[in-house]
Order: sequence, then C-alpha cells, then structure tokens
Amino acid sequence: MISGEKLTKVFKGTIIHSIHIHQVELLQNHYIGVSDSGVILFLSDDDKTVQEHLDSHQFQRSDIVDLGRKFIIPGYIDTHAHAPQYHNAGTGTDLPLLKWLEKYTFPVESKFRDLEFAEHVYSKVVDRMLRNGTTTCCYYATIHLDASKLLADIVSRRGQRGFIGKVCMDRHSPDHYIETTDESISNTKEFIRVILEANNPLVQPIITPRFAPSCTNTLMTALGDLAKQHNKVLIQSHLSENLDEIQWVKSLYPDIPTYTHVYHHFGLLNERTIMAHAIHLSEDELKLLKQTQSSISHCPVSNFTLTSGNMDIRKVIQHDIKLALGTDISGGFSPSILQVMRDSIKCSNSCSFVDSAHKALSYEEAFYLATVGGSKVVNMEHKLGNLLPGKEFDAQIIDPFAPNSPFDVFAGDSLKDIFQKYIFLGDDRNISQLYVKGTKINFN
Amino acid sequence: MISGEKLTKVFKGTIIHSIHIHQVELLQNHYIGVSDSGVILFLSDDDKTVQEHLDSHQFQRSDIVDLGRKFIIPGYIDTHAHAPQYHNAGTGTDLPLLKWLEKYTFPVESKFRDLEFAEHVYSKVVDRMLRNGTTTCCYYATIHLDASKLLADIVSRRGQRGFIGKVCMDRHSPDHYIETTDESISNTKEFIRVILEANNPLVQPIITPRFAPSCTNTLMTALGDLAKQHNKVLIQSHLSENLDEIQWVKSLYPDIPTYTHVYHHFGLLNERTIMAHAIHLSEDELKLLKQTQSSISHCPVSNFTLTSGNMDIRKVIQHDIKLALGTDISGGFSPSILQVMRDSIKCSNSCSFVDSAHKALSYEEAFYLATVGGSKVVNMEHKLGNLLPGKEFDAQIIDPFAPNSPFDVFAGDSLKDIFQKYIFLGDDRNISQLYVKGTKINFN
Ligand SMILES: [Zn+2]
Ligand SMILES: [Zn+2]
Repeated sequence: MISGEKLTKVFKGTIIHSIHIHQVELLQNHYIGVSDSGVILFLSDDDKTVQEHLDSHQFQRSDIVDLGRKFIIPGYIDTHAHAPQYHNAGTGTDLPLLKWLEKYTFPVESKFRDLEFAEHVYSKVVDRMLRNGTTTCCYYATIHLDASKLLADIVSRRGQRGFIGKVCMDRHSPDHYIETTDESISNTKEFIRVILEANNPLVQPIITPRFAPSCTNTLMTALGDLAKQHNKVLIQSHLSENLDEIQWVKSLYPDIPTYTHVYHHFGLLNERTIMAHAIHLSEDELKLLKQTQSSISHCPVSNFTLTSGNMDIRKVIQHDIKLALGTDISGGFSPSILQVMRDSIKCSNSCSFVDSAHKALSYEEAFYLATVGGSKVVNMEHKLGNLLPGKEFDAQIIDPFAPNSPFDVFAGDSLKDIFQKYIFLGDDRNISQLYVKGTKINFN
Repeated sequence: MISGEKLTKVFKGTIIHSIHIHQVELLQNHYIGVSDSGVILFLSDDDKTVQEHLDSHQFQRSDIVDLGRKFIIPGYIDTHAHAPQYHNAGTGTDLPLLKWLEKYTFPVESKFRDLEFAEHVYSKVVDRMLRNGTTTCCYYATIHLDASKLLADIVSRRGQRGFIGKVCMDRHSPDHYIETTDESISNTKEFIRVILEANNPLVQPIITPRFAPSCTNTLMTALGDLAKQHNKVLIQSHLSENLDEIQWVKSLYPDIPTYTHVYHHFGLLNERTIMAHAIHLSEDELKLLKQTQSSISHCPVSNFTLTSGNMDIRKVIQHDIKLALGTDISGGFSPSILQVMRDSIKCSNSCSFVDSAHKALSYEEAFYLATVGGSKVVNMEHKLGNLLPGKEFDAQIIDPFAPNSPFDVFAGDSLKDIFQKYIFLGDDRNISQLYVKGTKINFN
C-alpha cells in the first residue's frame, strides 16, 4: 500500500496492457485498485493480497465494479498532433509536404488569431481525441500566444493530459502567418510561464520550433537556451519527413552534416525531445538520436497520405531509440491512435515488401508503442503507459459487446481473439469509460 | 420516361457519383426519381424536365423527400470476400498466405458442414456487409453444398445483391476439408442449378475454383466447361497473391508459361472472370488479362496484412484491365469498402515510395473503383455503379451530421470537403439509409 492514499475505486475483471514490446499481458480475474489521487494502488489476482488492500482501506467488497465482458487497457498516447489542423482532417490529401503546408495548412493555422474560431475548433479536436481514447496528447498549436493559451485551457477543462506547444516560425513562412524573432521568443517564454504557473500537473508546455527551415538561427539558439533553462520541459519538432524538405535543410545548413545534427547544433536534442517522422535518416542520424536519448514519433497515416515515405520501424527499434505513435492530424487524417496502430503495421508490412529481412510489426508491438512507448517518449514511463501499481490510472474500459460495435464476437473467440478484433476493427463505440489520472471523462 | 415503370420515390438534394475514373460528380439541387421496380427514371436539376416526370406519373411534389444536408452515393461493390472467414476477421494476422490458410482458414471453413454454425456466421457477415454500405458482394462460401445454398438464402432474404460461390478444392487441402473431384463437379452443378432456379435476379451463382493449386486438372477442365455452358455465370478465383504460391504453381505446371496462363489453359479467363490480388504479374500476364477481358479484384487490406505485396494499381489502370476493390475478408480484416478505398490509396502511396514515377491513387479514383469499377468487374455496368437514369437504384444516403458521426464538419467546409471527410473518416454511422434495387434495407 502506498501511504496516505485513499482507495476509491476497485475494478474486477480483465486487464490488458504491455510490459515489454513483445508481450501483451492478458490478465483475467484481476483486481485493480485506484486511489483518490488517481494512483494505481494494486493489481493482483491473489485473493489474500486483494483482501488486505480492501481491509486496510476499509473498502467494501460490494463496491467493487465487476467489468463483466469488458476489459481495461491503458489510455492511448498521441505523441504528435496539430490541434488547429483538425479543421482540415480528411481533406487536402493530394499534395506532398511543402506544397501541402502552403496550400492548406498555413492558411487554416493563420485563422487562429481569431479566438472564437480557435475555441470552436480546439474544443472539437480535444473532444474528438478523448472520444478516441487518447488520454495524453502532444499538441502543436499555432504561432498565436492567446490561442495557444486557450488550447491549454480547453485541454485542462476537459481533463485530458496534454503537452501544448506554441509554434515558433520566424522565416520562410507566408506573410500572413509569420512572427518576428523577438515575438517568437518572448511569446514562447510567456507561454511557458503562464502554463507552468497554472500549475495543473496534467497540462505542460512544450518547446516547439515548427521545423528547422522555419526558424532563424537566432530563434533556434534562443529555444535551445530555453530548453536548457527549463530542464523539465519537453521539446518537439519535425525531422526528415520529406526528401525536398531534407534538401532544403541541406541548402540552409551546408556546413552541418545532417538534418538531425542541425537540431543538435542548437541544443535541441536531449532526453526530452520528440522528433516527428524521422523517415529518411542515415545511420549517423539514428546514432545521434540514440546518443542524445531523443525520441521519434512515428506517424504512418500522415506518411502514407503526404507520400512522405515508409519509416523503417524495425531499424529504429534495433537502434533502441525511444519510439511511439502520432496521428499528425491533419497530415494524418485520423484522430484515432487505433488507426495509427493499424497503419504502423501496414507501413512495416510495406517495408517487408522491399526488404525481405524486415520482420513486420505485430499488433502486440503496435499496442506497446501506443501505450508504453508513448509514456517513454513523453518521459513519463514512471507514471504512464501501463497499469502497474504506482502508476497513474489513465485507462479505457473497452466493451467488445457495445451496442452498435463495429465488429462481431463469436462463441469460439478466445480473449486474445477478442482483443485482436478490437485492435483491428474496434473504434470509439467500444470505449465504455475513459479515465485520466483516476478521473472519469465525460464525453461531450 | 421508361415505359411501364411507375415512379414511386423522388429525392431532392445532393447526389455524388463517378462517371469517369478521374471525375466525381457533385450534383447539388438535383432530383432523382426511382420506379417501383427500382430503376432510376430521371436525374436532373432542370425544373421543367423534373416537372414533366412528376406530371406524367401524377407524382405529388409534397411526396418528394428533401435530403437536407445528407447526400446520395451508389452502394459499394465488394468484388472479393470469403463469407465463412468473417468468423476470424481481425484475428490471425501473423502469417503469410499458405501458412495462414492451414492454421486459421481451412479449420474455420471446415466447420461450415454444421448448418447451425453456418447460419449464425453467414447472417452476421451479410448484415455487417450491408451495414457498411455494400449493396453487391462477390462471396466465396465453402466446399459444402448445403451451407453454400444457405448463404445464398440469407443474402436473398436480407435483400443484398450477391454472387455466391461454392468453393471447389479437390487436392492439396487438409483431410478434414477437401472434396473428391466428382463431388466438387456435381455439387457445383447442383449449386448453379438451384440458385438459377430460385430466380432471384439479385442473387447469382459464381464458379469458384479456390485457386489453381487446390484443383486437379480434371476439376479445372470441368469448371471451364461449366463456364462455357453457363455463359452468363461469373467466375472467380485467386491469382498471384504470394511469392511462395507463385513458385508452387510454377512447380505444378512447369510447361505453362505463367500462373495466369494456367487459368487460361482451362478456359477460365473471359469477360466474366474476377481474379483476386494479381500482385506479382508479368507484362505478359497483364496483357493476357486485358486480352481475355478478365478483371482484377484489388484487396489492399489483405495484401498488407498477409504481407503479400503492393499491387501496382497504376500499372493495371494503364493496361486498361477491369479493376475494382475487395475486402478479402478475412485475409483483409475489414468488412468495409470505405476502409479498402483508404488502403488502396495507401498501397498506391507505398508504390510511389519505390517508384517515384508512380502517381498515387486519388480518393476520387478509389471511389470510382468501389462503385463504377465494381459494376464493370461483375459485368453489370449497364445496371450498377452510378446513379444515371436507366440503372438500378443501389444507393446509400449518407448523413455527415449523423449523431455520433466519427468526424466533424466545420462552417467553412465545402461540399467537396465534406465528401472527402466522409471518404477518409466516415463509417457505417454515416449511413442513414441503404437501398438495393430501390428497396430499402432494414438493418438488423
Ligand atoms: Zn506534424
Ligand atoms: Zn481471397
């Protein structure tokens, strides 16, 4: 028992989570106890142990919630999403990255100077993410300070766990959507200050240079300094998504060996850094990410759609680089990490078509990446990712028999079959309840 | 006006369908009129034309159904699905074709000797297909005559349009799931006889050798003869799905130049033939398919999952081979042609990663393949595929604002944006009504 915690919730039934990348634990007839502050106090199928916990907290057996045929899994962690772009999700799927930014993305992001528009879209995207079981999300907002603060507010009000980034971009951006270097630095400082002062442990700022081409050296240097100064604050950016983008970075930094080294040069690669995409990396770049303990957010839906390329996930796993999944709304059209899991498998399958030695990703591995992998990428593996005692209860109660469920379970299906059907065919209709740090989310 | 037809339904609003592969027509403020026998009598936005139709049928203006913000699209055509395998959909995703058949697929198919089991699974799969907007489906049943007849019955009762194949396999199959050559031939004949005699224009038999390795020469010859004798009956089989399979066929037929030529050799390639997969075809094989007017059912979900390979869809389109989409339940885990459309785009995107000259499939092209493409593959382009006058009304009424819709529409979204969001993010929740030949389907 963890001292000082009051036991407030006990569920009995099936718990499914990952411990190692190759292993999904299917725990039947288990009890999981959660404290008033949202911490998991025990997870056990041992009657004596469970009884001791109940007794020491004077918790009535009759208050235990029987899950029946439902099961509990961890909440999903989306390590890369652009909240303003949710407006466009499912549209603008016909162009590669740089043209797509110019034609579809910068125009919609520039509208977030309008706080009413921002309130509407941000409310929808946070609700939609929660509805899909995403309990933790790394969001890019826009360059606008007020709208970025508003996004943090909305995430906070809705009870989601979020890392919110005011986007920095002071060059190579359209006239209608660009900041001066001074604005970018001072607004980033102000944003970090305000979010930290709000003192909601669930909502944190994240330093967010959009990507190397859109930030001057002065800005990059200042953001590197900020990252040093705030040594708990995460950093996120984009890396090696598209071949034209890579060429562009090469032309901007002819004296720096690789795209990855550009971020390193400005002090932006460390154990708190999340780089999205990282598709076309050289061996040296993979090693630099590993050496700096930086992590990769793999966004296969986006990489297919913007025809960016297939990231070789097996190579990243072999290099032991921290790795998780991202929707990349709206380069990726789907707000659902379940869909991203499916596409991470398809992306890996596709790698196996050109490299027969590539072992395709299993659904167990994809589930690990969406949960434990995510917790490592956001540097919170001690608190999130699975349902071990001592961690916080970010969890989904999944009902494979929900009315209107998108899949059918047959009499002969094992628990493993049902879990697989959920992974490949389930959707938000199967989420019966969602918890963040022990608090139940009300769906709008 | 088509003589003798009575006008029974008129919808007013937005109609969306394909005419050519590159063009989706978004018809706003149109009227579509449907006869009592399910034939489309008119599609027009011309007031005078519409009034003439209404007058000549004494149809009251007040009986016109205003679609509001909903829109009508054609029903989807699934050109390759294994009804019994639906039991396993979403499971058994860890093995390539031949091992997958042995470990997961033959065992479940063999259970369809039990008619109670068959009734249960077949009812579920037909309901699920309809629920996902599939108005026409090419089904493989199993080797069992009675269960295959039952599947045809269920499709008939539920009002779906279906091509039902009793599967033929008299060699290289497990002891528990194989027929003698005589059984296979006589049961196929009996099956065709019974289905044709039932005289339901919506439900037709389809000659179904499982694939070359599982049929003796005697059986293949007999099926070729049957195909000649029944010159309206379609033929379906599998072709060039997996490299090991191709090697196997090569070793079985060392004197026949290619896998495709094997089917040709036995008289099984003609304008009524649907070959699933066709991933690893040589130039000669593509030409043979074109020359014989045979068609391809592209099943990208399955091809990713069984790691069969990426079919180069652009090459097939350039060869002007009839082409449509298939779920390949349960090699493909999803019963939804919408999902298959999305994966056909991903498969094509993936082709572009290795061949920069490959122009990735657009969502407009995918929508064409799921509708008009399907109608050509089942040789019914005169009756199905889009909503032109003279065709039969197989249609979905799509509600992008359905309660619990999986996507959000914003004020600035154009009709084209909304349609795209439906294509990339929609699901069965967006289907408000479904019609087959003018008859509304009741969802179970
Ligand atoms: Zn991004
Ligand atoms: Zn098949």
